[in-house]
Amino acid sequence: MKLFRNIQLRTCGSALVLGIAILAFGTAQARDDHLRSWNDGPARKAIVEFVRTTTDKASPNYVPPGERIATFDNDGTLWSEQPMYVQALFAFDRVKALAPQHPEWQTQEPFASVLKGDLKGALSGGDKALLEIVMATHAGMTTDEFQQIVREWISTARNPVTRRPVLEMVYQPMVELLAYLRAHGYKTFIVSGGGIEFMRPWAEQVYGVPPEQVVGSSIRTRYEVRDGKSLLVRLPELNFIDDKEGKPVGINQHIGHRPVAAFGNSDGDRQMLEYATSGSGPRLGMLVLHDDAKREFAYGPANGLADSHVGTFTQGLYDEAKQRGWVVISMKDDWKQVFPSSR
Amino acid sequence: MKLFRNIQLRTCGSALVLGIAILAFGTAQARDDHLRSWNDGPARKAIVEFVRTTTDKASPNYVPPGERIATFDNDGTLWSEQPMYVQALFAFDRVKALAPQHPEWQTQEPFASVLKGDLKGALSGGDKALLEIVMATHAGMTTDEFQQIVREWISTARNPVTRRPVLEMVYQPMVELLAYLRAHGYKTFIVSGGGIEFMRPWAEQVYGVPPEQVVGSSIRTRYEVRDGKSLLVRLPELNFIDDKEGKPVGINQHIGHRPVAAFGNSDGDRQMLEYATSGSGPRLGMLVLHDDAKREFAYGPANGLADSHVGTFTQGLYDEAKQRGWVVISMKDDWKQVFPSSR
Repeated sequence: MKLFRNIQLRTCGSALVLGIAILAFGTAQARDDHLRSWNDGPARKAIVEFVRTTTDKASPNYVPPGERIATFDNDGTLWSEQPMYVQALFAFDRVKALAPQHPEWQTQEPFASVLKGDLKGALSGGDKALLEIVMATHAGMTTDEFQQIVREWISTARNPVTRRPVLEMVYQPMVELLAYLRAHGYKTFIVSGGGIEFMRPWAEQVYGVPPEQVVGSSIRTRYEVRDGKSLLVRLPELNFIDDKEGKPVGINQHIGHRPVAAFGNSDGDRQMLEYATSGSGPRLGMLVLHDDAKREFAYGPANGLADSHVGTFTQGLYDEAKQRGWVVISMKDDWKQVFPSSR
Repeated sequence: MKLFRNIQLRTCGSALVLGIAILAFGTAQARDDHLRSWNDGPARKAIVEFVRTTTDKASPNYVPPGERIATFDNDGTLWSEQPMYVQALFAFDRVKALAPQHPEWQTQEPFASVLKGDLKGALSGGDKALLEIVMATHAGMTTDEFQQIVREWISTARNPVTRRPVLEMVYQPMVELLAYLRAHGYKTFIVSGGGIEFMRPWAEQVYGVPPEQVVGSSIRTRYEVRDGKSLLVRLPELNFIDDKEGKPVGINQHIGHRPVAAFGNSDGDRQMLEYATSGSGPRLGMLVLHDDAKREFAYGPANGLADSHVGTFTQGLYDEAKQRGWVVISMKDDWKQVFPSSR
């Protein structure tokens, strides 16, 4: 009986070990699968090596879980920003939707141009015109109402060039990278020049990033009690611009750590990458270069690509990347697949 | 042999079930242990019932994990705020430490009074004097340097009345409550009128709340590159006051959800509790009442307690709590133990 029990225990022990091994193997498999849309090139290698070395307790580059902070720009880094930012499309659509309540917009710029479909004309007024459009469309409602407006709009919005739903123009390799980092104990944050309240309603579903891990530009809000219910009213006043020098400021304000990894695609991300990669210990900075005219859009002007006012990636940033050891991701060469497979 | 294998498998199966049961029991035990410093009164009952009903999938009050957001005031809710806010002690000590670099402070108010140890005199200048002290002591260095200054100061700081280390004057029942909520899938945030950068360096170690889950008042920062290294310089300009109406604003800005549970102790927390508890579905609002002169301090003026300028809990707030169904925690009656046992 003793022998029987010994055998049994040993066999159970083996079953347990086997079970754990299967689980472990399953996890490792799942992790490797995370980057399946990446070609086995220098970008993928840099990611895998960074994650390996920062999560291996025996490595001198080990980073404890609480400090595993990775920040991602959104427009042009996680989803398409051409021919214009998705949030600009949203603002223009809102001008059209609100026009019946604003008869004066038929003759008042920049609204008149938007209503005529002349976006170039609308934006000829520069930042002032853009700000007027943003305030007219993003303020004056409660935060709950705005969330609902964004949710409804984004569920049907399409890219004006490709006619694909904008939510299907997220970059599959980057969605995989977010999940891969999280699977290795990284906390992933969006740090975007876009509106914080414009991204939050869908960022969790699409990127797996919850509202409290989204950092962005914002307008002010005011606390009010209406019929005993508390709410926040969105005011037509700028609160914070989360772009360029604003990105490290926003990161410090919201996250309170210096990230160990940062991902961007334009000059607006330069300071974020500088901030992340000039800390001590292992650091990863990466920039998506839009060099794939066939599958997405090709623009720079880094590396001789066409100039773009949206998501400008200058030669100066390209040179700084080379000098600081940031990895430039070539959409053309590093990505097996750009967008999610159609469902 | 077949029988043997069957028995073995069944026994292994039972062992597995038993193992899982032990694990589950262990977890349940650990969870119950979380609230061991609470007496079995109405406050503890309200907490346990709220957590049970919001985490039970079969309950109509079930709250999915992503929406399990709980916010906690800090001063007077998680640690002692008497005879004055700990951050004020810090500011006064910093004035003394910086005095050799500021000979003019010997005659210039409010600094001269601080240096003479006359805190009442120093604060007689009201908000303006306080702001001058804060800016002189909290700005002018990098965020990394400030973090280090706070870390060093707090490791030796003591309460001027009890002479206990300030970090040992956190409320043990509240530390248990934070852990209890987290064990049930709640994400716990600090939402304090105190400085965000003053709390972050020690909040994780003491409360288990990481820097990215701390919301507080702040001054502005500016991005700079010095010798190729990026850093943020703290500027003597207010950025945000996270108190009263500011608390829901700060919650929306940092967290982007309406909390389902909120914990405070003073009129500064009123709007946060209103905001949290006027959402739909199950809500929990709780206020710590300092009615325990023996073990801590007794002040109100709610419920006839002595008036206090620090952490004022007015009768009006007390009445609103009763009317809205917020639970008032009596330190005297609800807490078995107030502070952590001496180590």
